[in-house]
This record gives sequence, C-alpha cells and structure tokens, in this order.
Amino acid sequence: MTERNIHVEPAAARAVEDQHIEIVERKGIGHPDSICDGVAEEVARALARTYLDRFGRLLHFNTDETQLVAGTAAPAFGGGEMLEPIYLLIVGRATKTYEGEKIPAETIALKAAREYLDETFPHLDVGTDIIVDIKLGEGSGDLQDVFGEEGAVPMANDTSYGVGHAPLTETEQIVYNTERQLNTTYAEDNPEIGQDIKVMGKREGDQIDVTVAVAMVDRYIADMEEYKQAVRDVEAYVEDLASEYTDRDVTVYVNTADDYEEGSIYLTTTGTSAEQGDDGSVGRGNRANGLITPNRPMSMEATSGKNPVNHIGKIYNLLSTEIAESVVEDVDGIRQLQMRLLSQIGQPIDHPHVADAQVLTEDGVEIEDIREEIVDTVDDELANVTDITERVIENELSTF
Amino acid sequence: MTERNIHVEPAAARAVEDQHIEIVERKGIGHPDSICDGVAEEVARALARTYLDRFGRLLHFNTDETQLVAGTAAPAFGGGEMLEPIYLLIVGRATKTYEGEKIPAETIALKAAREYLDETFPHLDVGTDIIVDIKLGEGSGDLQDVFGEEGAVPMANDTSYGVGHAPLTETEQIVYNTERQLNTTYAEDNPEIGQDIKVMGKREGDQIDVTVAVAMVDRYIADMEEYKQAVRDVEAYVEDLASEYTDRDVTVYVNTADDYEEGSIYLTTTGTSAEQGDDGSVGRGNRANGLITPNRPMSMEATSGKNPVNHIGKIYNLLSTEIAESVVEDVDGIRQLQMRLLSQIGQPIDHPHVADAQVLTEDGVEIEDIREEIVDTVDDELANVTDITERVIENELSTF
Amino acid sequence: MTERNIHVEPAAARAVEDQHIEIVERKGIGHPDSICDGVAEEVARALARTYLDRFGRLLHFNTDETQLVAGTAAPAFGGGEMLEPIYLLIVGRATKTYEGEKIPAETIALKAAREYLDETFPHLDVGTDIIVDIKLGEGSGDLQDVFGEEGAVPMANDTSYGVGHAPLTETEQIVYNTERQLNTTYAEDNPEIGQDIKVMGKREGDQIDVTVAVAMVDRYIADMEEYKQAVRDVEAYVEDLASEYTDRDVTVYVNTADDYEEGSIYLTTTGTSAEQGDDGSVGRGNRANGLITPNRPMSMEATSGKNPVNHIGKIYNLLSTEIAESVVEDVDGIRQLQMRLLSQIGQPIDHPHVADAQVLTEDGVEIEDIREEIVDTVDDELANVTDITERVIENELSTF
Amino acid sequence: MTERNIHVEPAAARAVEDQHIEIVERKGIGHPDSICDGVAEEVARALARTYLDRFGRLLHFNTDETQLVAGTAAPAFGGGEMLEPIYLLIVGRATKTYEGEKIPAETIALKAAREYLDETFPHLDVGTDIIVDIKLGEGSGDLQDVFGEEGAVPMANDTSYGVGHAPLTETEQIVYNTERQLNTTYAEDNPEIGQDIKVMGKREGDQIDVTVAVAMVDRYIADMEEYKQAVRDVEAYVEDLASEYTDRDVTVYVNTADDYEEGSIYLTTTGTSAEQGDDGSVGRGNRANGLITPNRPMSMEATSGKNPVNHIGKIYNLLSTEIAESVVEDVDGIRQLQMRLLSQIGQPIDHPHVADAQVLTEDGVEIEDIREEIVDTVDDELANVTDITERVIENELSTF
Repeated sequence: MTERNIHVEPAAARAVEDQHIEIVERKGIGHPDSICDGVAEEVARALARTYLDRFGRLLHFNTDETQLVAGTAAPAFGGGEMLEPIYLLIVGRATKTYEGEKIPAETIALKAAREYLDETFPHLDVGTDIIVDIKLGEGSGDLQDVFGEEGAVPMANDTSYGVGHAPLTETEQIVYNTERQLNTTYAEDNPEIGQDIKVMGKREGDQIDVTVAVAMVDRYIADMEEYKQAVRDVEAYVEDLASEYTDRDVTVYVNTADDYEEGSIYLTTTGTSAEQGDDGSVGRGNRANGLITPNRPMSMEATSGKNPVNHIGKIYNLLSTEIAESVVEDVDGIRQLQMRLLSQIGQPIDHPHVADAQVLTEDGVEIEDIREEIVDTVDDELANVTDITERVIENELSTF
Repeated sequence: MTERNIHVEPAAARAVEDQHIEIVERKGIGHPDSICDGVAEEVARALARTYLDRFGRLLHFNTDETQLVAGTAAPAFGGGEMLEPIYLLIVGRATKTYEGEKIPAETIALKAAREYLDETFPHLDVGTDIIVDIKLGEGSGDLQDVFGEEGAVPMANDTSYGVGHAPLTETEQIVYNTERQLNTTYAEDNPEIGQDIKVMGKREGDQIDVTVAVAMVDRYIADMEEYKQAVRDVEAYVEDLASEYTDRDVTVYVNTADDYEEGSIYLTTTGTSAEQGDDGSVGRGNRANGLITPNRPMSMEATSGKNPVNHIGKIYNLLSTEIAESVVEDVDGIRQLQMRLLSQIGQPIDHPHVADAQVLTEDGVEIEDIREEIVDTVDDELANVTDITERVIENELSTF
Repeated sequence: MTERNIHVEPAAARAVEDQHIEIVERKGIGHPDSICDGVAEEVARALARTYLDRFGRLLHFNTDETQLVAGTAAPAFGGGEMLEPIYLLIVGRATKTYEGEKIPAETIALKAAREYLDETFPHLDVGTDIIVDIKLGEGSGDLQDVFGEEGAVPMANDTSYGVGHAPLTETEQIVYNTERQLNTTYAEDNPEIGQDIKVMGKREGDQIDVTVAVAMVDRYIADMEEYKQAVRDVEAYVEDLASEYTDRDVTVYVNTADDYEEGSIYLTTTGTSAEQGDDGSVGRGNRANGLITPNRPMSMEATSGKNPVNHIGKIYNLLSTEIAESVVEDVDGIRQLQMRLLSQIGQPIDHPHVADAQVLTEDGVEIEDIREEIVDTVDDELANVTDITERVIENELSTF
Repeated sequence: MTERNIHVEPAAARAVEDQHIEIVERKGIGHPDSICDGVAEEVARALARTYLDRFGRLLHFNTDETQLVAGTAAPAFGGGEMLEPIYLLIVGRATKTYEGEKIPAETIALKAAREYLDETFPHLDVGTDIIVDIKLGEGSGDLQDVFGEEGAVPMANDTSYGVGHAPLTETEQIVYNTERQLNTTYAEDNPEIGQDIKVMGKREGDQIDVTVAVAMVDRYIADMEEYKQAVRDVEAYVEDLASEYTDRDVTVYVNTADDYEEGSIYLTTTGTSAEQGDDGSVGRGNRANGLITPNRPMSMEATSGKNPVNHIGKIYNLLSTEIAESVVEDVDGIRQLQMRLLSQIGQPIDHPHVADAQVLTEDGVEIEDIREEIVDTVDDELANVTDITERVIENELSTF
C-alpha cells in the first residue's frame, strides 16, 4: 500500500485506436523545430554535466528557448550552396557563479551546440552554413533556492502536470518508426535523404495515409530522374515498414508538394528546410514521446532544454510516459493507459499532488482485477523519479 | 443539405465538467510568451494591411517566431530600474518585392511591434527597457504560389487541423475572466498590478483552486505593507469574480511563491517577469481560445503571427472555436461540443477534408434531433471562412 | 617657471598655409561614421553623469566602439520609405556594480543614444528606421584601479599622445564652417538638406576647390527640377560663405556624383547615407578638432566615447587643441602652432612626459621673444587639465 | 617624360630621424583592432577570388567594418578558460546577384573569417571562444557602376589620397620587427607568448624606449616564476633584436602594467586581450605600412577590407608606400621620401590628380640631380597600378 495519491479509473474516452479519425505527426530531427529541441537539450545536458563535475550537484539553469532563423540556399542537382547562413540563437538562463567560482556557461553551451550540429548534420558546415549565437542570462534569484539539499528529492518548481500514454496505436508506431528508420538504417545506404523528414499519419477507419516529406540532398542527386527514383525508393521503404505495424490498408505519399513540371521539388543542399525559409524554435514540435497526437491530451510545455532536476514540465512529461509504458508491460489486460501527473509547487516531486491513470482494459478484464498491480507499478516508478534526471543527463531519454 | 464533409457524432469522452480533475491555465498578456504572441500577431496584422493597401491582396508572410530574451532589473519599493534591457527578436518570412515594387516589411513590422508594446505596457520604455530587433527573410519560392486568385477561396497550405470547443466549463470561465478582468477593469483603479498575470485553475470534484501570479509594479507600492495589501485586494477581487461563474467552492491563492520573511516577493519595475529571468516565445502559451486546457484536445500550432489567409494552423483553430460557439448558441440541447477541422493541402479551405463535431447532448436530447441544425450551422460557418481572415486583420479576433 | 616638461621649438615644417597642396575634410554629423561618434560620445556623457550623480566620482567605462550597419531605403520625390532598418550596435565597457550597488549602464546608454538620434535626425524614426542594440561588457579588473582618489589628478591610462594645432588655415575654416553652417543656419530655412554632409577642401596654390556632398531629403523635393534647384542653392550659399574666410579663388562643387540623365542623384528618405549602403564606426572620421587634415600630424585614437577622466587618447587630443588655441589667442606673433602632449602610463595627466610646442612665428618675431609667454600659457592649461573632463561631461566640447 | 602629374619637391619638414621626439607604434596581429583588420582583409580576398573565379572580374564589395566585442575569460596558471565568448560582427557590402546568378557572399565571408582565425590563433576555439556573425548588405546601386570594363584601368571611387614613405627610421624598424619577429621566429620556440603583442617606440634624441605588451598564454606558464622568466626572455630577445637596427641606446620594457605583488599580470587563455575587456574594430590600428607614425602624415582611411580594384583609400595607401620603397631602392642619394597620391573621383587610377614626392636628399645630393630618376620610377609604378590589385588578392601585400 502506498501513501502516494494514485488514482486508477476507467478512461473517460473511447480508445484512440477505435476513434474514427486519428491524426499523428512527427517532425524528424532535421526539422527546424527539432533542430532547436536537439540543441536546447544538448546544451542542457552539457550544463548539467558541468555542474555535476565541478560542484557535485546541479545548479539552476533553463535553456528551453533556442530560436532558429532560416537561411537562404541555392540547391542544385549535383550540389548547390548556401547563400546566407542559418542563424541560431541559444537563449536561456544558467548559473554563472557559484560559491565564488565562475562557470563558463556560454562557451560550454556553444561547444555542445556545435558538436551536436556537427554530428547530426553531415552536410551542414557549422560556422559557415549556420551561425550559432547565444544569450544566456542568469535566472532570478528566487528560483535558485528551489533546488533541495544534495541527495534529497527535489521540490517541484511549479504547479504543473505531465501526460503520457501507452501503448502506441498502429498509426503512432508507423509515424514514429518511419522517421526513426529513415534517419538511421535507411540513411546509411541512402545518403541522398536529408535529416529533415516530416511524417504525418492520418487514419480514417481502417485506411491509413502516411505522408512523408523528405529533404533530398542535392550533391547525391544528379538529375530529375534520380530525384524521382529517390522519392520512389522512400515510398517503397515506408510501405514495407508500415506493414510491420498494421494489417490495415496503408497508402504512402512522399514529397507531395513537388511539381515536376514546374521543376519545383524538395531539393536541399544541407538536408534541412532551415536552409531556406523555415524558421524554428523549441517546444513547437514533437511532445516528449516524440509525437504530436491531437487525439490525446498533450502538455504545452517544452521538454527540451529544461533542467532535469525539478522542472515539472520536463520530469513529469518524461515520467508519465515511462510509467505508462511500465504499467502496460508489467500488467496484463490493458488496452490503453493514459497517465497524468499533477505537481504542487514546493512539494517533493516523488509525491505528486495526483497521479492519475485512466485505463481501458481488454475485453474480459475488469479494472478492479488489476488496480492494485497498476498502483504498485506507478508507486515504484514514482519512488525512482530521480532516475529520470540521471537518464536525461546520460542521454538515455529522448525529449522530442 | 451540404456537399461538405461534415460529421456529427456523440463525444468519445465524458464531459470535461464531469471529469474528476480539470486543469486550466491562462498566461496573461504580459507573460513573456504572450508578449511574443502579441507582437507576432500585431506584426502579422500590419503586414496584412500593408499588402492589402498596396496590392489589394495578401501576399505570403509568416511571422510566428518572435523570441524574447529576459533582461535584468532591480525592482524596489517606490520605483526601481531596469539594468539590462529585454531583447526581442522578431523572426519570420515576408514578401519584400511584388511586381517590381519593394515592400518595407521590416520597418512596418518594427513599427507595429513598438506601437503594440507602447500601448500594452505603460511601464516599459520601448527602446530603453526592451530592444526590438528583427530578422525577416523571404519565404521559399514555392510557398508563394499557394495563394489563390483574388476573390477565390484560398487553398490550404498544409495537411493540418484545428480544434475548438464550446461552451467553456466553469473553471475555464473563471480562469479566462480572472486575467481579462484584472488586466482591464481592475487595472484601471489599481495601477499597482502589472500585465504579467498568470492564472491556473484546478478543479477536483467540486473544489476549484484558482492560483494567480501577479507581477506588482514597484513605483506604486511604497513598502511591504502596501504589497501585502495589494495581494489581498487581488485575492478578494478574484473571489468575487469567481462566484459569478460557479456555485462550487473556490479558493483563491495569489503570489504563493512569495516569502515575506525572506523579502522575496513578486515585485517588478515594468509589470512583467520578462524584465528578469523569464524568456518567452510564440506558440508556447495559450491556444487560440486564450486557454491551455489539457483535458481537451489541443493543437500544437502557434496561431499568432501566421498569415490569416490560408494557414490552416491559424484559420482552422480560430474557425473551429467560432463554429463551436455558434452551434452552441444556435442549437438548443447541447452540453458540450468539440469541433475539429481537418484540411488537405491544396484544397479550398472552405471544404475541409473532414469537419468533425463531437457532441454531448443535454439530458433528454438525442443527437438525431439536432444533427441537421448542427450541420447547417457548421456549413454556414464554413461557407464564410474568409470572414476569419478579415476579422483577424481588423483585430476582432484574439489569437492567444 | 614651471616644473612641467614643456618644450617650445621652431616647427620642423613649412606652414601648412604655405604648402602647395592642402587637403582638408569634414564628415558632417549625419555621416555614418559621425553618427557613431555622436552616439558613442553621448553614451559616454550619460554614463559619466550617472556615475557622478550616484557615487560622486567617475568609474571606469569606455564606449568608443559603436558600429553602424547600413539599412535599405527606397527614396522617392515627395517622400519615400525605409525598407530595412539601419542597425546600430553600441559596444564598450562600463562599470555595472560599485560598492554593492547595481548601475543600469545598458539602459542608460540606450536611452542616451535614442535621445541623441531623435534630436539630431528629425527624419529618422528611431526604433523603426534604426535598431539600436547594445553589448556593454565590464572592463578587465586591472583597469578599474587606475582611477585615482577623489579630487586628485588622475593618472594616465596609457603611454600615448595627443596633437592639436591653431589657428586653422583658410581651407580648414571653410571646410569646417561649410558643414557647420549648412547643418544649422542654412538647414533652418532649407529642410530639404539632410544631416549627412561631407565636405572636402583641396587647395592647390591659391585655388581652393570645395566639394560638398549633401544628402537631400525626398519629402521636401517634388521633382528633378526642385532637386537641381536645391543643389544650386547649396552651391551659392557655400560660395558666399567661403568668401568670408579667404580671398583666394574658390570653386564649389555640390553632389558631383549625380548623373541627371541616369536619374542617379543623392536623394534620401532620412537625410543620411546610412539608410542605404554606407556603414560606419567610431573613430574613423573627423579627429577631435572636427577635421581630417593629412597635412598635419594626426592621432589615430578615437576621441568619442572614451571616458574623459584619464583616457589620454581623449584628454590629450582635446587638450592639445585647447592649448594651441589659447596660446595663439594670448600670445602675439604666432603664425602656426602645433601642440603635442605625450603621456606616460601611471603618471598624473597634468604632468605630461613632454609637452611639445612647435611654433612658426610671424615675420619679425623671434621664438625667444615669446617663448616664456607660450610656456606660461601651456603651463596654465595643463594645471587646469581636469576642466576638460568637466567640459566634456557638460557637452561643451565637441569630439568629432 | 610622362604625361602624369608627378611633382618632386624638397620636403617641407626635417627628417623624422632628426626630430627630437619620435613616436612609433604597432599593434600586433592579435590586438583586437588587428584581429578585425585581419578578418576584414581575409574576407575581402575571399570575395575577390570568388568574383574572379565565377565571373572573371571583380564586383563591388567593401568589408572594412568588422566589429569585435570582447569576451570574458578566467585565465589561470597552467590553463584557464573562456567564460563568455568574444563576438565578432563582420559588416559590409557585397554584390550578391550578378547577371542572374546568386553569389554566396555571406557564407564565403564566414568561411574565410573562420579559417583565418583558426590559422592565426591556435588557442582560440572558433565557434566556442568567439562567435562570428555577419551582416553583409548590398551596396547602393550607384556604386556598382564605377567598375570599368574588363581590362581597362578602373576609375577612382572617390576624391581621396594615400600617403607612404621610405625608408623606415631606426625606431620604425625596431617597432615593426619586434612584433613581426616575436610573432614568428620567437613564437616557434616560445609558445607561451600570445599573438596580442603591442609595441610602442619612443625616441628622445638618441635614447630609444621600446615598450612591449605581450599577452602570455596561461597553459604554458605554470606559476609566477615562469611568468617572470617569460617576461625576461622577451626583454632579452627584443634588446638583441633592437641592436641590429640602431646604435642608439635602447631600453626595453615588457608588460610594464604588471603588478607582481597584486598578482595583476598580463596572463590570457587565448593569447589576446579580446578575451577580456578589449573591443576592437577595423581601421583603428596600424596604417597600411603596419605602423602608426604620428611624426608622419597619415591617412585616416581603413585599408583592410576594402576592395582592391578602385578604392583609393586602399590602393593609394598601398601604392604610395610601394612607390616610396621603389624610389629609395632605385635612386641613390635619398635620405627620406614621402609620397602622396591624390585621386579625382571618376578618373583612371593610374593617372592621379597629383603624385607628390617630398624628398630629403643626402648631404651633397641635389634634388635636381635625381629628379628625373624619381619621376621615372614613380611613373613606372603608376603604370602598373593594377598589380596592386593582384598582389592584394594573392595575399602578397599586408594591409595592417
């Protein structure tokens, strides 16, 4: 039995899998919003590691505000060039002095951002194709006090909440894995696809449409024929991939905005639309679970870039997803589980004001049969909430 | 009978008013995120008016990316001062040449932003306390073609969706009106309250907690006693106001993070936390209806700053709320209505791919009794979709 | 007799008035370089006043680095418009904390810059036509110690020098007064001339050519005829003015780069070439006496923006000109005097390492006859060196 | 006999070598002003090469306005770190479209700047320790027309002038070579000296004082003893070096502002004072011949960053020095020669309005004896003026 305030109740809504229309979206790692999420989170990790290394504890910071201003490019078959650089402004707060010691927060952040961009975007020459600038102020004094004693469970920085769910619907799985597989396995053998891959899944009844926009990289594409082939290859790959996750009818569309006759195609020099006309910022794209799911409750909070100690907008979004996944894995008979964690400012984060599990059971299973198991799993996860902090710092948890 | 694809079906979920826990939030116009929303939208309106005045039609633009970097301030009873200015970067795309004529997009945007800030923030000396900078590129060529012929209904710029609902729950009404009334009626007689007012409503069963954070303006507050009185005054005012919207028990908390003993209170020089430590950006705060409502489906799209002609992320979020309100007003017997509009890229925006009304009827009313009325109202509203564009430009529709 | 190291010797060179070719230039207050000089100096004055008001003494600062990036404009007869704003970056160092008290150096600087621009450029809408940004760091710790005790004569911050001369040659007087009169008396009745007036004087023997470039303001000029008339008016005015200073032959050229047939004329919307294509920065234009005089020794040091307490690059350039003028006024028989002051870092500024007067006497006067008088005057001026500081702060001394 | 307007006349002044006081200064390549000069010139070269490669001719550009804002550093024996990055803003004008083709002026400039910084400053991590930003506009339309036909001699862009002299005095040689040798030969074996080396030479009669400020690099210096040794080593090296250029008495001072007792020494992490407190910009330091020589006429024009085709402020400053050196080398009997070239806007640059050689002959030599030789050499050099353009582009001519 737990002292934590854990509620388990039947879901207020039909299972998403049963709703007539379902929409799911994922912005790939090269989308301008995701570039910002990625940089913000990498910067946060670098700051966290620095504070731990130097002081044995995390200090206040929040870097969840990177802004990207698109550049100008002249892509061309066989290889074009960037004309005007992308501008990336890292914005946020960090502790720069602690117990008399200076902390190089800005240079650490810049280094982290550059290394992340270098690794993630092989066709983006950092410093030439993209300018990385920074404005990292110090926080307001008050906030610095919220961090608890070493070893103690931190206090919530805000009255806020996080939401998560499990398992993913078929459409969610397809959308998520389409981007992930294209940007890893497929990209290894197909350097012509850029990192800016946007996937939209729409299910109407049992018909799933998967619309994929892939920024093709000009240096690997000699002419229009090769471009068309590259598009067809992605199409075929995604069709195959989708069939692993569903028996429903799937139609795949790739780069539908192309107009071959006008010569208007999705060709880029760097692999991202940030090179020309698409601005971006943190927290405007994927939620903490990597998806945008309008059929589900979502949190507006940006997860990327926040400090992983006590920032509810980060911790509870990551944790609620973790909990949902654990419960579904550990407890039989659950068709859909939605987890919500509500914090109270100033209270220990392992004791949410409410932990709220909305459950749809499989046919023949009653909630009462499994309530206790669910509560126990939720309780265990909450007891280990600080693991989230560590895993974020170790880069074991993605935030977008 | 309509040729539009309008679905009316029973809601998949319990009415929000019946759910055990409900959370509602509103970031007031002086919150750093709202400052960005407000500037972005004002800039968009100014650009729209310019294009209309000069060419009789809207041209491509999108200014939904303003970034705010907090300043540093030294508030003090009786009047403090800003030490380092807030930095506001207006980011976006705009057409700068049309039919051989140059359009001063950047100077128009700067002027609009300054005027908005001047009007909205009486204690913020624009140019001294806040630097307004701008990076407004031109869009990618492709996007410019989407705008239809003059007079014709524009085509959707994306496959996307909008969501809206009506009526507001009691908690939603309280949260929304608390900020609106404080920032208008109450502020008239109480200059000590700043524009940065954040309201969080939490309902558990029949207990509603309203937590209000109000940035107090130092020049109107002589000492700690006056500060405490100002807090108590807001508390009393909100208690009164809340009772107009509900018979439930309401508890009001104001500036709960204050610590009088430590002298740590929410005192500002300019009326916004942007003066010290709180960054902000567009699309991170309120949704198009002015609220953050995690119990409801929400769109991740930033509404503010987008062009109001064919940007689904703007039009359909505003329109779905308009439709929901119209239907609830026109058709008797509806307890809760949630409207969703799904677009298809390249199709006329008055013909959404699906218009989806999820209805909870009042006791004794069957959906079938009112289905036709609902469809007719939805159909009428869709037929007049371009009114949304005009009303946005005329500043008759708020976007945050 | 003085303990100061004051040398008086015959000039090493022919009088400039006697040299065959003489070149003199003045960049008017609206020239992009002068805009930067003016802002830098105004910012310095504002900081100086602040330190004096708050602490009764000056603290370390140096703001001699403002950078202007030109905008884009579309001037047109009757009134054009700015398309992209000028960008002005105030750069420098200032003390931001003193004895535990915070000093709002950045907001003070911004306010001073805006007010200066507002007053000086009636057709420039500050905040719309020009963005004023700032990066004001703190100095290195060492520098802060150089400031002496209150009341004491400050120590030189560097081993450096200043140069000045008197009287002005005829060409120098013409060049200087042409800009000064055009930008004051003439401008009162002729609003069509902008502040960006550049004057180049070239004397070959007894022929003086005065080349004036005047940015005309489009809103006051209806067509090409009016433009031509405006040019002719300036020409006539300068011819008249020049004749007050010389009996030599003077030819005046105005806006010689114009090409009426191509329609290429010097028309501006704001009155300065900074609106289109001409960048600027501090210390690149006029020397401390308001002129560029390649026939004379000049100091490379920027005078504008430096602190007026102990910065030799400022004090000694202003003072050497003051001394030269005093000596020439007080002592009869001097045809040309060039003053040079050489400092030694860490020594009191009223005791230069060397004060070096190079004198050309009038016919019939021997240096020995007036040496003592000269030394006395120089000595007096040096004894009152701190007057320079006060007069700079009181805006009684121009620095460019 | 030449048709060019070449004047040869006796100097109006005593030889600088004979004047009682002589002051000479050189800011080394790592001085903040020189960093800007170096970047500006490198950017100019890269743009020039690009235009030549792509169009076979130079197009309009001018990048003589780089601005550096100092960072913040925490140097420490054995190796410190940068806390806040230096900010470098490249400013200027460049042609971005020519005959319908886009030119990536900004990315080319950024790449050139980074490569220059990487090569020149081994201890500066570009992108981390220094942010390189850019604002490169297009010029005003008029200016673009000045560039002549291919092959033809370009027309002067302005009525301006250049000055140069030869030979260098002993003090000039010492000052110049001290920095050059320290930053090359000496640095090879002594990595502890940074690139920011400032040399001031002051000669009074036959006593020469050489004051050297060398930024020491912390990672190579373990403690105060090693620091003192490093200072003494530089002292000894410069004493040796100076004796190669003069028989006069030379006293060398190194890092005189150090205060060992206070622990206030010139220790840096990156080798330049730009890391902490010293801002910089183009054209504020060395003249085109690498020196600041207040005993000589100087041009105020920034040489670095200007286009080398027709910009008189660049061409004539470089050329007049070249001519002076050639004449002194080719013609016997010259003790000091000062060359001045005066242009006339719109006239071919190989035909200056006046080329003016002021000559001091050696004892026993009359000007008339060598006048013709001088005129011939000057004439030859003027005839080959376009070589200057090529040599600038090939990086064979230093501009600062």
